[in-house]
Amino acid sequence: MCELLAMSANVPTDIVFSFTGLVERGGKTGPHRDGWGITFYDGPGSRTFKDSDPSCRSEVASMLKSYPIKSKTVISHIRQANRGKVSLENTHPFGRELWGRNWAFAHNGQLSGYKEVLKCERFMPVGSTDSELAFCYLMDRLAANYADKKPSREQAFRFMAKEGKKLQQYGVFNMLLSDGPYLLALCGNNLNWITRKAPFGEAKLIDTEMVIDFKQETTPNDVVTVIATRPLTSNESWTKMAAGEWILFRNGVKIASGK
Amino acid sequence: MCELLAMSANVPTDIVFSFTGLVERGGKTGPHRDGWGITFYDGPGSRTFKDSDPSCRSEVASMLKSYPIKSKTVISHIRQANRGKVSLENTHPFGRELWGRNWAFAHNGQLSGYKEVLKCERFMPVGSTDSELAFCYLMDRLAANYADKKPSREQAFRFMAKEGKKLQQYGVFNMLLSDGPYLLALCGNNLNWITRKAPFGEAKLIDTEMVIDFKQETTPNDVVTVIATRPLTSNESWTKMAAGEWILFRNGVKIASGK
Repeated sequence: MCELLAMSANVPTDIVFSFTGLVERGGKTGPHRDGWGITFYDGPGSRTFKDSDPSCRSEVASMLKSYPIKSKTVISHIRQANRGKVSLENTHPFGRELWGRNWAFAHNGQLSGYKEVLKCERFMPVGSTDSELAFCYLMDRLAANYADKKPSREQAFRFMAKEGKKLQQYGVFNMLLSDGPYLLALCGNNLNWITRKAPFGEAKLIDTEMVIDFKQETTPNDVVTVIATRPLTSNESWTKMAAGEWILFRNGVKIASGK
Repeated sequence: MCELLAMSANVPTDIVFSFTGLVERGGKTGPHRDGWGITFYDGPGSRTFKDSDPSCRSEVASMLKSYPIKSKTVISHIRQANRGKVSLENTHPFGRELWGRNWAFAHNGQLSGYKEVLKCERFMPVGSTDSELAFCYLMDRLAANYADKKPSREQAFRFMAKEGKKLQQYGVFNMLLSDGPYLLALCGNNLNWITRKAPFGEAKLIDTEMVIDFKQETTPNDVVTVIATRPLTSNESWTKMAAGEWILFRNGVKIASGK
């Protein structure tokens, strides 16, 4: 399995603290040594850093821990390979463009008996993971369903939540999906989230010795939601999502959800 | 205008030497301060590092100068904005997936009177540059022309060279395009290339004090071709491409060309 991390915020925020906790799980406090990646949005643009080296000893991950990139929406993933070899093309997040929007996707779980069902036409996987195939299939469904008229961003995500839930019949399917402004979290079995806002306090990472005082790092109007496979901090109260539950975030705020 | 850099090699090779020369032109020895990017292929997978900061003072560029990523195919670009503001979505190289292959594209030049002509359907630009629009248009043409049967990689590039040449009626259009194994260089007005192979010698950068002895860095069977807007070294003999000329490289070797 793998670990997921995402952030939605109302102001460009750096994710160094959470990312530092996550990368420890990439071969040090966790077994997820088969590559990692992170996508930062900046307006409609995005950039993805990835590496097939374990995150705990990746040069690129070290750079990201010391160079805070500020973003309103981030998706990250560390991989423990099950379907598909360890290679760059099998490393999440995956990206595709549709309607002039950059879509980023990461998955935690494993599917079975899906190959006959998940047929892709327009969007094709480059690698050999069940995850990228599922992403391409979902993007195909989205493009086909709205072939005549582009949906609103929220409509598109409601559709993707519904279609993503259907994939849960093939196995464990925890999904993160973004187009930049919006972030969708769909829970298969393990996703936890927390919204930090004023009054801000201290947080302590579980995976390494690091404490942050968010009061020093934020302004009173900041709203920052973090989503992770397992809680990253030991002294805060994270909300565990139910199996099949989905939440759509924008600007750090939950704007829609369903089960 | 902008500056382009690309590499095609028969073994995974680091591009630190050439990249070090290029990034100096990003705000120091050259005026191209409006962002930069570089795509490294690793098999069918690829990763793109980009930044809207000038390359001469970018943290990400510094990391890449000290951390040699080995690749057989690389495309890089530093930008001096003309069409489209300075932002991440307007930063080259641009990427799209077609037929399960990752395509990367960078452009140097400026087009005029193209907006009524370059209509896109399947691939849509995220940003506002003439370059990304031209790339999406070319990808649309490629997908439409081979809608019934996927072409060989070489056929696809011959088609893209022909279609790219047509865009030269709208202005200056120097283009680099890759799918991983293949690298196409199409010259509008300025592209120079050099193939390094045994016996290897010393090379001296024009833009900064740096000399490399390729004998120390290579094996006798290595073949490495570098393409750049302007020659990067002062003591080697680069070949200047003619206007309208295109060359297709694979494994560092020229395998097809036309005018």
